[in-house]
Amino acid sequence: MTKTNPGNFFEDFRIGQEIRHATPRTLTEGDAALYTALTGSRFAVQSSDAFAQAVGFARAPLDDLLVFHTVFGTTVPDISLNAVANLGYADCAFGAPVWPGDSLTARSEVLGLRENANGRTGIVWVRTTGENQRGETVLGYVRWVMVRKRDTSAPAPEPAVPDLLKTVAAEKLTPPAGFDAAGWDDALSGEAWRWGDYTPGEKIDHVDGMTIEEAEHATATRLYQNTAKVHFNQHTEGQGRFGRRLVYGGHIISLARALSFNGLANAFRIAAIDGGRHVNPVFAGDTIYAWSEVVGRIELPGHAALGALRLRTVAVKDTPCAGFPDRDAEGRYPESVVLDLDYTVLVPR
Amino acid sequence: MTKTNPGNFFEDFRIGQEIRHATPRTLTEGDAALYTALTGSRFAVQSSDAFAQAVGFARAPLDDLLVFHTVFGTTVPDISLNAVANLGYADCAFGAPVWPGDSLTARSEVLGLRENANGRTGIVWVRTTGENQRGETVLGYVRWVMVRKRDTSAPAPEPAVPDLLKTVAAEKLTPPAGFDAAGWDDALSGEAWRWGDYTPGEKIDHVDGMTIEEAEHATATRLYQNTAKVHFNQHTEGQGRFGRRLVYGGHIISLARALSFNGLANAFRIAAIDGGRHVNPVFAGDTIYAWSEVVGRIELPGHAALGALRLRTVAVKDTPCAGFPDRDAEGRYPESVVLDLDYTVLVPR
Amino acid sequence: MTKTNPGNFFEDFRIGQEIRHATPRTLTEGDAALYTALTGSRFAVQSSDAFAQAVGFARAPLDDLLVFHTVFGTTVPDISLNAVANLGYADCAFGAPVWPGDSLTARSEVLGLRENANGRTGIVWVRTTGENQRGETVLGYVRWVMVRKRDTSAPAPEPAVPDLLKTVAAEKLTPPAGFDAAGWDDALSGEAWRWGDYTPGEKIDHVDGMTIEEAEHATATRLYQNTAKVHFNQHTEGQGRFGRRLVYGGHIISLARALSFNGLANAFRIAAIDGGRHVNPVFAGDTIYAWSEVVGRIELPGHAALGALRLRTVAVKDTPCAGFPDRDAEGRYPESVVLDLDYTVLVPR
Repeated sequence: MTKTNPGNFFEDFRIGQEIRHATPRTLTEGDAALYTALTGSRFAVQSSDAFAQAVGFARAPLDDLLVFHTVFGTTVPDISLNAVANLGYADCAFGAPVWPGDSLTARSEVLGLRENANGRTGIVWVRTTGENQRGETVLGYVRWVMVRKRDTSAPAPEPAVPDLLKTVAAEKLTPPAGFDAAGWDDALSGEAWRWGDYTPGEKIDHVDGMTIEEAEHATATRLYQNTAKVHFNQHTEGQGRFGRRLVYGGHIISLARALSFNGLANAFRIAAIDGGRHVNPVFAGDTIYAWSEVVGRIELPGHAALGALRLRTVAVKDTPCAGFPDRDAEGRYPESVVLDLDYTVLVPR
Repeated sequence: MTKTNPGNFFEDFRIGQEIRHATPRTLTEGDAALYTALTGSRFAVQSSDAFAQAVGFARAPLDDLLVFHTVFGTTVPDISLNAVANLGYADCAFGAPVWPGDSLTARSEVLGLRENANGRTGIVWVRTTGENQRGETVLGYVRWVMVRKRDTSAPAPEPAVPDLLKTVAAEKLTPPAGFDAAGWDDALSGEAWRWGDYTPGEKIDHVDGMTIEEAEHATATRLYQNTAKVHFNQHTEGQGRFGRRLVYGGHIISLARALSFNGLANAFRIAAIDGGRHVNPVFAGDTIYAWSEVVGRIELPGHAALGALRLRTVAVKDTPCAGFPDRDAEGRYPESVVLDLDYTVLVPR
Repeated sequence: MTKTNPGNFFEDFRIGQEIRHATPRTLTEGDAALYTALTGSRFAVQSSDAFAQAVGFARAPLDDLLVFHTVFGTTVPDISLNAVANLGYADCAFGAPVWPGDSLTARSEVLGLRENANGRTGIVWVRTTGENQRGETVLGYVRWVMVRKRDTSAPAPEPAVPDLLKTVAAEKLTPPAGFDAAGWDDALSGEAWRWGDYTPGEKIDHVDGMTIEEAEHATATRLYQNTAKVHFNQHTEGQGRFGRRLVYGGHIISLARALSFNGLANAFRIAAIDGGRHVNPVFAGDTIYAWSEVVGRIELPGHAALGALRLRTVAVKDTPCAGFPDRDAEGRYPESVVLDLDYTVLVPR
């Protein structure tokens, strides 16, 4: 009997099944330093203990996306080792902040299953939850992936497609406890724009571009202990569809977020990812640009110091964003667009 | 008089000579994060403080191979700066676990010397010992290297070849104090296989492959403060035997160990390296695969919660390991095999 | 109105203007590990808490150049986003040592302005000061850059060129408090040469070479949160003057300093940078070598355990330094020379 993990195939999943994932992970100042070095992120709250303390925190929390990638990484061997495509994310809410030294674990529940007409693959919906060592939820999200069947003659399950919210419910937005805008220093944070300065419909070109090297995306993806083969194995990928390794989509989210500092420097916390899609592949050598649209402004009852902004950030390869490259009226994306991320950030008022 | 270190040549070594090595090194959570990011290692004990605490440790210890590479790195300027070839390791036992914040130093004693018939080189055997700031041994091993003579007319020393053990003595296997298997959680560690589930003769294909980039191996090797020129200087190596930089053999050991998680996830501690050989060179762009053979199962008297497994892990380049590529009956390795590592790991029962 | 930072143009600067910079930054053991991994630095005081404690410090301080690059990085969005050329540094003194966990902020004062005859650019002199969370100065330096005008018809300011010292004043050299040479161990530090062993006029070839990869210099430069576009954006740089990304000059300073360990292992602290110039560009693939000249030996009154050495370290690409490649009698540098750094280090007596 083989001792290696073949991953789950479509017929291995059952509605309601709960999977606890390896490997648990303590995130540290070492991970924070690598996250900065690999993405170029510059948000002040995450960069400086002194700045974080001035606005009411015990110290600098870890970057929200470092937490996301770490939790996501644990799920790969169980959920997507036999995936054909990563189809989307929804209802992703960030909970308790994660501090250096926190130990995370993750589990997933199967929410939905639907075999495809070809009989060779099916779609699996899971809700993944990440917790810290105190049992507090740090992150929860729904993800759906297309997974191969091991045996095409296995019977199709009763189709069950979950009703996914297109917006993370307002009560799930969790402003971090203790935040005090009085100590916020716009000179140190990098910009003077506060919540009220952003207007729905407004578009921001984040201007800068960041080129990706193989060693960079692979190092980031290993940091998250994500084992998806397409990111690491040139020997097999070189013979595959693209002839080369694919960059982990989460690395693109991180680069787009880091680039968005230029125009959104005070959007210090991601409260939710309402939806997200990787719409074209990215390879080493590509240069990522990004632009954002302010979709809405959300009041946070009981949190006078903060407001939320609903944003779309679009990442684009090898094309500056002065013209805001976007999907067309039929929803088709140009080849240059690689990511369409719909999310909600917190900004001091 | 030149102030730079020319390194020791063959005739500079004397039997019994003891060399204390620069640079002492404190290993931290930063080094642990880099080790994960550069190798993709996923063993739960080293990844999570909470998991480590559940099995009886104060916190997550540092990876055994990070300790090995750090100690090894210190020896390069004194032992192998003028080496032609790194011939082998033996009798390598890991002692006290190393925790973030521990400061290591290392020293070597010359055990053996034998000039080669050509009169231009000789073989030097050294026993290297690494200690923490409390004077506890964290690692000891024998290594032999072929070193150039400075002056070919220097007289040959009396040949002295140490008798090397082919197996680290059982009493040198040091199970970490306080280990408690009751808290071991197979869902979090990644696999359910315990010590008794492995059978001598069993072979495991670790399936995955990892491609190496120049920036990755060079960054790992600098992390270990290893200064061997062949890994870093493209200007000279480009004119040399291979036309390019050679990947540090220790990086291959680390990749093979990280890949072995798939099938050996509960083998959480390397207790000993009984022997090891780098049998073909590795270059950036190569994809490393690995397979293991269970050589033996060792009882650990007084440690009811743990057993030891003697393993051979073979690393192979650009060739999947379903067929277990190996040396032939005459002991000759195919060009694809790059490492043959004979070592002993600890696994919960 | 755009929310993104266009950077300051020449006509935006005023003599006496003070700019407080984003992003504040806590430097940690994670940054220290990355600094070692990206540069190969091996100085014992910065590598080992135990060694640092033996010579009187509470623990290992962070590398002086990590501090320099971090402070420098914060200034880029305000000072040099529209720079054409980085012309030089002077009067750079290192103050309080920086320990893991310290939070740095930086500010700059405009010292001088002179429009160029072409009316399109001008030179800006700034004095930048970095402070820790206790308000202690950790670093101060003067830098001058050539900056584009936004509007070539904007009137030229009254020229004001600061008088720059060619030597950091002796009273600005700040030997770290508590240093005790009695605990200095030459075997661990790597060399036995003490302050009195260096002679003015002496030249040292540091022998080793280090090849630079794109992922390495970009990762280092992102670690410092330096956003200068020329280091990161292959899409635009590929169409520019060199057809490729330029390596951050500070990375070359770090590599030269790390290489200088071979011959200057006991020069454990940079007290001052008296002057420095990047005299030719460096690109990925280049191999950096270095040599140093002892310019002078400086007594430090009241610090019997330490002396200072004034050094010139010259970094050279793709050329070993046995012949000490240097500027000619007219001060012209060969194309191989990339850095001429004039600085002052502390060495135990």
